[in-house]
This record gives sequence, C-alpha cells and structure tokens, in this order.
Amino acid sequence: MKYQFDDSKKYDVIAVGRACIDLNAVEYNRPMEETMTFSKYVGGSPANIAIGTAKLGLKVGFVGKIPDDQHGRFIEQYMRNVGVDTSEMIVDKDGHKTGLAFTEIKSPDECSILMYRDQVADLYLQTDEINEDYIKNTKALVISGTALSQSPSREAILKTVQLARQHDVKIVFELDYRPYTWKTTEETAVYYQLVAEQANIVIGTRDEFDMLENHVGGENAATVTALFGHTPELIVIKHGVEGSYAYTKSGETFRGKAYMTKVLKTFGAGDSYASAFLYALITGESIETALKFGSASASIVVSKHSSSEAMPSVSEIEDLIAAQV
Amino acid sequence: MKYQFDDSKKYDVIAVGRACIDLNAVEYNRPMEETMTFSKYVGGSPANIAIGTAKLGLKVGFVGKIPDDQHGRFIEQYMRNVGVDTSEMIVDKDGHKTGLAFTEIKSPDECSILMYRDQVADLYLQTDEINEDYIKNTKALVISGTALSQSPSREAILKTVQLARQHDVKIVFELDYRPYTWKTTEETAVYYQLVAEQANIVIGTRDEFDMLENHVGGENAATVTALFGHTPELIVIKHGVEGSYAYTKSGETFRGKAYMTKVLKTFGAGDSYASAFLYALITGESIETALKFGSASASIVVSKHSSSEAMPSVSEIEDLIAAQV
Amino acid sequence: MKYQFDDSKKYDVIAVGRACIDLNAVEYNRPMEETMTFSKYVGGSPANIAIGTAKLGLKVGFVGKIPDDQHGRFIEQYMRNVGVDTSEMIVDKDGHKTGLAFTEIKSPDECSILMYRDQVADLYLQTDEINEDYIKNTKALVISGTALSQSPSREAILKTVQLARQHDVKIVFELDYRPYTWKTTEETAVYYQLVAEQANIVIGTRDEFDMLENHVGGENAATVTALFGHTPELIVIKHGVEGSYAYTKSGETFRGKAYMTKVLKTFGAGDSYASAFLYALITGESIETALKFGSASASIVVSKHSSSEAMPSVSEIEDLIAAQV
Amino acid sequence: MKYQFDDSKKYDVIAVGRACIDLNAVEYNRPMEETMTFSKYVGGSPANIAIGTAKLGLKVGFVGKIPDDQHGRFIEQYMRNVGVDTSEMIVDKDGHKTGLAFTEIKSPDECSILMYRDQVADLYLQTDEINEDYIKNTKALVISGTALSQSPSREAILKTVQLARQHDVKIVFELDYRPYTWKTTEETAVYYQLVAEQANIVIGTRDEFDMLENHVGGENAATVTALFGHTPELIVIKHGVEGSYAYTKSGETFRGKAYMTKVLKTFGAGDSYASAFLYALITGESIETALKFGSASASIVVSKHSSSEAMPSVSEIEDLIAAQV
Repeated sequence: MKYQFDDSKKYDVIAVGRACIDLNAVEYNRPMEETMTFSKYVGGSPANIAIGTAKLGLKVGFVGKIPDDQHGRFIEQYMRNVGVDTSEMIVDKDGHKTGLAFTEIKSPDECSILMYRDQVADLYLQTDEINEDYIKNTKALVISGTALSQSPSREAILKTVQLARQHDVKIVFELDYRPYTWKTTEETAVYYQLVAEQANIVIGTRDEFDMLENHVGGENAATVTALFGHTPELIVIKHGVEGSYAYTKSGETFRGKAYMTKVLKTFGAGDSYASAFLYALITGESIETALKFGSASASIVVSKHSSSEAMPSVSEIEDLIAAQV
Repeated sequence: MKYQFDDSKKYDVIAVGRACIDLNAVEYNRPMEETMTFSKYVGGSPANIAIGTAKLGLKVGFVGKIPDDQHGRFIEQYMRNVGVDTSEMIVDKDGHKTGLAFTEIKSPDECSILMYRDQVADLYLQTDEINEDYIKNTKALVISGTALSQSPSREAILKTVQLARQHDVKIVFELDYRPYTWKTTEETAVYYQLVAEQANIVIGTRDEFDMLENHVGGENAATVTALFGHTPELIVIKHGVEGSYAYTKSGETFRGKAYMTKVLKTFGAGDSYASAFLYALITGESIETALKFGSASASIVVSKHSSSEAMPSVSEIEDLIAAQV
Repeated sequence: MKYQFDDSKKYDVIAVGRACIDLNAVEYNRPMEETMTFSKYVGGSPANIAIGTAKLGLKVGFVGKIPDDQHGRFIEQYMRNVGVDTSEMIVDKDGHKTGLAFTEIKSPDECSILMYRDQVADLYLQTDEINEDYIKNTKALVISGTALSQSPSREAILKTVQLARQHDVKIVFELDYRPYTWKTTEETAVYYQLVAEQANIVIGTRDEFDMLENHVGGENAATVTALFGHTPELIVIKHGVEGSYAYTKSGETFRGKAYMTKVLKTFGAGDSYASAFLYALITGESIETALKFGSASASIVVSKHSSSEAMPSVSEIEDLIAAQV
Repeated sequence: MKYQFDDSKKYDVIAVGRACIDLNAVEYNRPMEETMTFSKYVGGSPANIAIGTAKLGLKVGFVGKIPDDQHGRFIEQYMRNVGVDTSEMIVDKDGHKTGLAFTEIKSPDECSILMYRDQVADLYLQTDEINEDYIKNTKALVISGTALSQSPSREAILKTVQLARQHDVKIVFELDYRPYTWKTTEETAVYYQLVAEQANIVIGTRDEFDMLENHVGGENAATVTALFGHTPELIVIKHGVEGSYAYTKSGETFRGKAYMTKVLKTFGAGDSYASAFLYALITGESIETALKFGSASASIVVSKHSSSEAMPSVSEIEDLIAAQV
C-alpha cells in the first residue's frame, strides 16, 4: 500500500522546529567528566530530518530560528551546503542562543546527554515569522513535538498546523519527546493530543505515544483507534529492537524489523528513521518498503559518531536491506 | 428552531474560568480620579454567567481558581449563596490574587475600567485540577476566551475541551476578549481559532470574531462558513445596538433586536446576554426566543450598577420583552 | 540636645519610594469578606511621611514612580494639593500599577491588610530617573526600607544614598519592613545593614531592627553600638505602647512615652510618628521634644480612619502633648 | 613597600564567584564557524585565580555554586586536584548549568568569545550558603565583580563583604567586568562603587574603573583620590601593553611594565596577573615585585592555549622576569 502526496507542491519536505549544536565526545568509553575534547555537529530532530531527507535527494526546506552568533551561522551554512533551503531560517535578534547537547559515549548502551536548553533561539520562533506562501508549497510538513514545549514557538507551530490544513499539506507529527523545557507531563499530553488529532501521519516510539495519552503502558490498538477518530491516516509506532509498526486508517497493519549493526551510541536513531521512512513514502514506495528504509537508516546512524553528518545515502540503505533480507 | 442538549446530564451549565472582584464607583458622572468610594461585587465573565444562569433557575456549577484570602472567600460565598455549585472552585496556595476591575462611570457612553490582572489566581488553574467526572456531567460547558490567555490556565481549558468532546458535552465558547494578559493578537487568533473549531456554540461580538480571524472588518457570512467547516453548529454574532444574529449549521439565520433602556454604564451586557440566551436554549425555547432573552437581559443589566448582582429574573426579562414587542 | 541640618538646602525633606492607594473599609467591626464598600486614600510609608511633614508646614519633595492611570493621577494630585513638590514623580510607561492595600477593621486590635504588590510601579524606579540636582538640595532624605526590596528600585535607592553622601544630605532611613516583595529575610538583612551603615538617622521598631540583624530578640544596646561604628548619629527604636528610645552617637539616650487615645485601627502609626519627629528635629526642637511630637502624632492617626488624610496639624499635636503631660 | 596581611589566618586566599567551562578552539587562525573541535578547561575569573594562586603554592579555598552534572563534577575534581580546597563549593539542586565560554582564536589580536550565561549555577549562590567560619579564616578574600551582576549571588557577595569586614579579612575586589548578565551600566556602577568603597585592594583595567565611575575616559588620579576617601588602601589600574600602576593610600605610585611574548590569544591575562600579583604580595614581596609578577604571569598565559591549565609556576615567572630585566 502506498500513501499519496500532492505532486504539485514545490517542496517534498519542510521541517519546522529546532536546529542545534551537538558536541560529541571525541574520546569514547569514558564518562563525560573525563572527556576533554568535543566535536561539533548540527543537531536537533527536525534539523536532522531536513539534513537526512536532503541527503537522500528530496527537495527540502527548513523553518526555524537560529541565533545571531557563530553557532547560528555554522548551522545555516551546514544545512545550506547539504542542500536544505534555508531561506526561511529566521535570525534571532534578542540574544537567544543555540541549544547544545554534550554527548557522552560510555558504552554502546550507556550514553547520556547534557543539554543546554535555557533561552534557546528555536523556542522563540513567532507566529508572525511563519510564511504562509512557503508552508503551503510542500507535500509534507514535519512538526517536531519539542517545538510545542514553550511559547512563542508553541503558537508558531499551532499556526503552521492551521495553515497546512488550509492548504492540503500533509502534516507529519514526529512526537520527538524530550523532558526538558516541558513544565509537566499533563501539559505535554494536552498539546500532543491537540496536534496529533490534526496531523495526517504520526510517528513516535511507544513511550512517546504514552506521553500523548498521559499514562504508561498503552496498547497500540487503543492508541490508533482513538487517533483514527480524527484526522490521522497513518501511524507509526516504534518499539526499539523489536521493530516498528505502521497502521493505516483503512485498517492495515505493517511490521518492520530492526537491522543488526555494531552500535556505537544510541542517539540519532529516530531522526534517521523518520528521514528514510519519509523519503520512501514520498518517492512512491510502499509502506512496507518505507518501514525497511527507516529501520536500515537508523541502524547505520547508531554505528557512527554523529547524528547529522552520518545520515546515509540511498545506496547505503539499500545495501544494508539487501544484506539482511 | 430548537437546539438539543443531553437531558441525562446532572448540570445544565458549568462555566470555567475567572471569578474576580469588581470595584464599582459609588459616585457617578465623574472621572475615577475623583471617585472616592467603591462598592464590591463579584465579577468576571464566566462567574457572571454562572451567577446569571443560576438566578434564572438553571442547575449551575463553576470551575476556577480563587485566592486564599478575603476576596477569594467572598467570591465563593457569594456564588454559593446564589445557588452556584462551588465544589470545584480550587483555592490557590501560591499567593496569587483575585483580579480587580475598578470601574469609572463618567457618563452612559463613557465608562472605563482599570484592571489588576498581574499574577491572578484564575490564570493559575492547572490541568491536574480539572475533574473529569464533573465536566462530563453538564449539558453545556461555557468556556471563556480570557482563560486561554496564559499558561497554565490555557492548558487546563484545552484539556477541559478535550474532556467535553469525549463525553458529548456541548461546548459554548464565549469569546470574551480582553486585551490585557494576551501577549499579541496573533497569539489570541491561534487559540481562538483552535477552540472555536472544537466548540458547538460560539458567541461573541463582531469585533471578537475579528480577533479570532486576526484581521479587521470581517463579514459574518465568511466567518460562519469557515467555522461550520468544523464542529460548530450555532454561532451568535453581536452587533451592539444594531442587534445580534444567530446562524445555524443547517443554514438558517435569525436576527435579534436590542431593547431600549436607560443606560447607566456599558459593562456587564455581554455576560447577561449569554446567561439569558443559554437559559432559553437549555429550557427548550426556540433560537428566536433565546435571542430575545439575551437582548432583554443585557438591557436590564446596563441600566443597573453592577454586573453580577443586577442579573435579572425570568419574569423581569419576560416583562421587558412583552413591553417592547 | 538638638540635631543639626544644613540650612542652605532648598527642601526640608525629600522622601523617596512608594506612593500607593489604601482602600479602607467603610464598614467597621467586621471581616473584610463582609465589607462591601471601600474609601480611597493615598498610602505608602514615604508618601505618608511626605504628606505628614508637608501638612506640618515643612518644604517637602517626593521622588517615586506612579502608573499612567487614574490611581496614579489621583496620587499626584492629592500630594500636590497638600503642598508636596511632585515635580520628580516619574510616570511609568510600562503598564505597571499602583500598589493597593485593602484594610479590614475588625476591632481596634485586629486589623488585617490585603496587599496588591505584584508589578507595582514604585519598584520600577530606575537609577537614571534620579535627579542629582534635586537630591542634593534637601536637608533630610527619607529612605524607605521597602524601596530596597526589588530591582530596579533597589539600585535607584542605592544611587540616591551615594548622591546624598556626596552632597552632605542627611539620610533618614525608615526601616519600614513589609514581608511582601522581599524574597528572604537574609536578603532583607543584607540591604538593611548596607543602607543603615550609610545613614545618619535610622528609625524603626524593635522588630525591624531585628530584621536588620537577621535574628530575633535583639537588644538596643548592641544594636546601637554596632551601627555607631559606621555613619549613624541618631537611632530611634520604637517599642509600641512601651514608648520609644532615641540614642545619639555621643552616648545619650532619650525615652519617649506613648500617648493614650481611643484606637480605631493600628496602621498609619509609624508614618505619622516619623513625620512629626522629623518636623520637630528640622525646626530646631530638642530630641526630647521630637520624641513627644512623634508619639502624639501617632496617637492621633490611629484614632482616625485613614493614614494620609488623618495626618495632624502642629496645633493638634501640641494640644495632645499639653493634655497628657 | 609591602602590604600587610594577618598571618594568623588559615588560608592565604579564598576566591568567591564563578567557576565555568572554557571550550577552546583546537584549530587556530579561523573563525569559530569553521572550528570543528573544542578542548575543555575550567574557566571563570575567580576559579582561575584560585587555580593560579594554588599552583604558585598558596593555601587556597573557593566558594561558589556548581551544577549537579558532568561539567560541575569536572570543575570540582580539577580544582581539587591542583590543590584548591573545594569543601565550600555548593552543588546546585535546581537544574542550573555551568556557564560556557566558546573561544575562537582567529589571530593573536582577534579572539572572540561566545558565552552561555543564562540560568548559570554560579549566579544562584545564596546568602545562607555562605559559611562565616570559612570566610573569616583567610588573609585575602577575592571578590569577582561579575558575581554582583544578579541576585541571589549579588546578595551572597554583599554578605561575604560584610563578614570579611567584621573579621579583618582583606577584601580584594577584582572588577572583572563582563557585559552579559548586567542589565544596565548604571546598575553596574552602583554595585561596583558600593563594593569598591568597602574593599582593601581594588584591581581592574582602566576601562573597568570607568564602568565603576559610569563614564568614559576617567583619569587615574581622580579615581584613586575618590576611592581612598573610603576603605581602599591599594589600587591597581591596568593599561594593557602600556603596563600597570599601583597606588597606595599613603600616596605612593608604582609602575609595572608589560613583558614581551608571542601572543596566541588575549584572554586569561587578567586572572594570571591577579594570581601572581597576590602571590607576591601575600608572600611578603614588595609592591614593585608584585607588579612584575603580575605582568610576567599574564605574558606567559597569553602565549598558551588555556587560561587555567596554563597558569605558570613561580620559577617560570621568575625566569621571564630575569630574562627581560
């Protein structure tokens, strides 16, 4: 089964939300206290998805706010260089900063992240900075859940959702839950519910769907039944190494398996999954194939040092799929 | 034409939002600088509607947050005494205050209000203070637009809307726009749009619908067409002395005229209108009759000193309607 | 013994800090919940002292910030009408409000106050709004402790103190402790200590000196010994109905008794005390006489309804002193 | 001429204020946008002075607040390992972060710093976290001007100053002006003036003394005359490559020259200057010698990659002094 997009749109994907800096430990297998050198990469879920889909060959744009400093300029240059349209990246003029993620790689299972998310520019995106003419010209609009965590970014996203609905743009809601910046889990559930009901495609881990429902231990069947009562047409629920499931409003269920790899670190998997899954869907592949693409892409990224720089090409993905039939 | 409610519900109306203190000038026809004495009344749009509908004989509850001080206790006692169920009024424990409105009555046309709305208790209502068992047991849930103006009250209201929809409670959205506490008109438009699309009945002045649409000079026809594409079934747009219009999803339009009166001050009209309009609708009167009830009730309140204390009885309303056929 | 001021200065007293609105219960002997009418007066310790000393005939100025609203204009007009120079009252342009004090008069011993002190204009006085040419032209500068409770008012006061010291203006520090707006008692102690060490005259209740020392149950002897190690020359410690003590750097101690009166309410006593005490000192009376003036003035104000309006004349004070020799 | 300290004290130096993380560009001679790797060092003026004086052999303690995260633990371990007593470093429990300074080394003259100073732990040091028994036991207490820039750190520092004065501890005020975190230059001037008047030794650049005086282009003669009217006994004013001046209350002036070096970057000079100057003063050297030590130490640090790690030993300093007689 395939999923239909509007082919008259100029862009394949526009991602909205944060673009940050990852500072990844150069030295592995030690706690961050003993890490003395860090490598700089672009990070942040929607930025990674924009980079990932652009590297796969899609026509991609990005909407977000970056600081007027060296880190902001690095982000814009990097994304532009990999082919993302950055004409709607807004430069913050109020002294806000880029978010930072210092990553520690203790062992393949034990990776912690030290976040700097106070007064970050991405959460200061404003409703009047959203360009309707830009938003309406994409097949898929990727919304990151974290962009809903604070005002005024929250309202900018809600407005983007309203514009997308008015212009028949498919809304892809990547739940992308991060505890920092949210005040309470009740607050998260309210906005996740609100936006999920208006999205066409919802992607998240089982834990993230539990956040949306504000309880633990939810069942996929109940989750998709509730959401299919509203706008959603396709729901992807990821269960880590057990694989992922795609549900359609018409009643089908597809299962995707996880690919084996030598894991270096655990972060970056979700963004590479979403990138490749969307790539396949938008290029007319079946949902089954899209699940394979997502899983294979995730496997490749967790074996490498960065999240953005490591985004694979189509042939790398296809090779892995072929190798582990 | 009549509007249907679910008669199995325990309450006729539950209003959600602010309950405040009005301090009305005792001396008339002078600027507030020269007013030396003020009378204390309960105020705030949803509190006034709760009081107004309770005085008309409906079974009414109220959900809101009041401070742990003398003004908070006065509000709870007053509302309880006029018959409002106050069991879900939450007492704030963080030192927030009741909002205040000092009113000046310079002349019938010239009334200004001096608001105290910093750190007010009503805007600190939290999602986890909303009782699902209470909300689900009312025919009509009255949501005040002002309660959307700040977090965490905003999220508490959004959750209330989600609960009402799950339990087939009719949502009445009183736009009740007040510029204070909103950061920008863009922000107002985002949340007004969001909640209006999910409400069953939307009531406001033409200016308030312009806020919802984020432009000036909107036309009723376009407004109702856009909203009827979503949940709304009945929309009331008020045009001051020119009367008001009710639109139904099935395509009917009803016009209500304004009643003549000796105006003392201009405030309080909207809340008394909503109270009597809802009373008529819920007691099975036609929409035409409900429009008359609303207008007559508004006329009575603007001729009196307070907003809450002045809420009329059914016979007062019927007498005025009969007198100005 | 007499205290010397610089007679070449244009003003006798300039008071710095808050000017607010008191809303006093019109109905007595009941809790505020049952009080339905309130009378409006100017309030706030330094405003009361400015009004009190102006009514006693001194040449008085006031430095402070008032809102751009009806309450702000009332305050300025009232103070100007009683003879206070208001040319250095700054009008706030950022939407801050006048502080409010709702007073309840349950019984002569039981009076509570409900304060509105969030985002009040007086605490937004800024360093660059302090006029050096004005400050340097007064015999006595009255600093209110409450003005130190928040930035930017805190810095404006510290700058005023620096200017006064540079220009040989006598600094009168009225401790005027109010728990609201201070974050911690440690914070209060730090700033009280800092300013008291630089003041010439320090006036407060025993409890307020305990705040300065950040412990309870302090002894006057230790308090004055510590402060006389710095700038202070005259210290007045008030012990309520037991009377008050004045200590001089040269080692003298004077005791003032309290005057009998029919108490209506307890507030307003401190400001009337300070007004009459300063009046006597500045007009060349002995410290003993100044203590009598302070106590008599306090007795008169607690027998009346307001704090500012009730400020007595010289003859009223002299009559009471003569009647209770 | 020599400066006297109280030899009965347990510590030579206790520094109070921030300890941060410097992330220094590994790649030189390029803008930060093109820097891809950063090395981690402890930074922050008072931490650097503590490290610098400890490495020179003094008995040193540190008072400050660090986050409960990997960066906080690294700072504490590093400082402890170089011999600083860290028993009074407070671990923040409210989620605040370590300040960060990303440094760019474009060329010897062109080095910019990108600061992260929002919600930093060091500015959350509280008055009740200051241990009087610790503070009273040092010959010299080094106060950093930046610690005055925000509450509650500001009050903690003011309390520390009060305690030091009560216990005959010499207060060394390092002006250490950084524009971030201060609201206005007026605010800076108020607190710099306040603390400088109570300090025994004041050290800063000419520009920093201009901040204290709130005007540009100040003259050293006027600056020292004004400050010697209060507590200060020794004032050091630095003029960059033109050298530095030390003024004593008794009227002497000493000039120190700058030492030639191959400059790698400009930051770190001030802290190494203060460390070596204080070391010389406390070990009984003359003021002339102390000026040499300060300048030589600064020259050494600007030729190396870090600020803290690069702090020189006594013999390195003596060698440079001997080499450039």
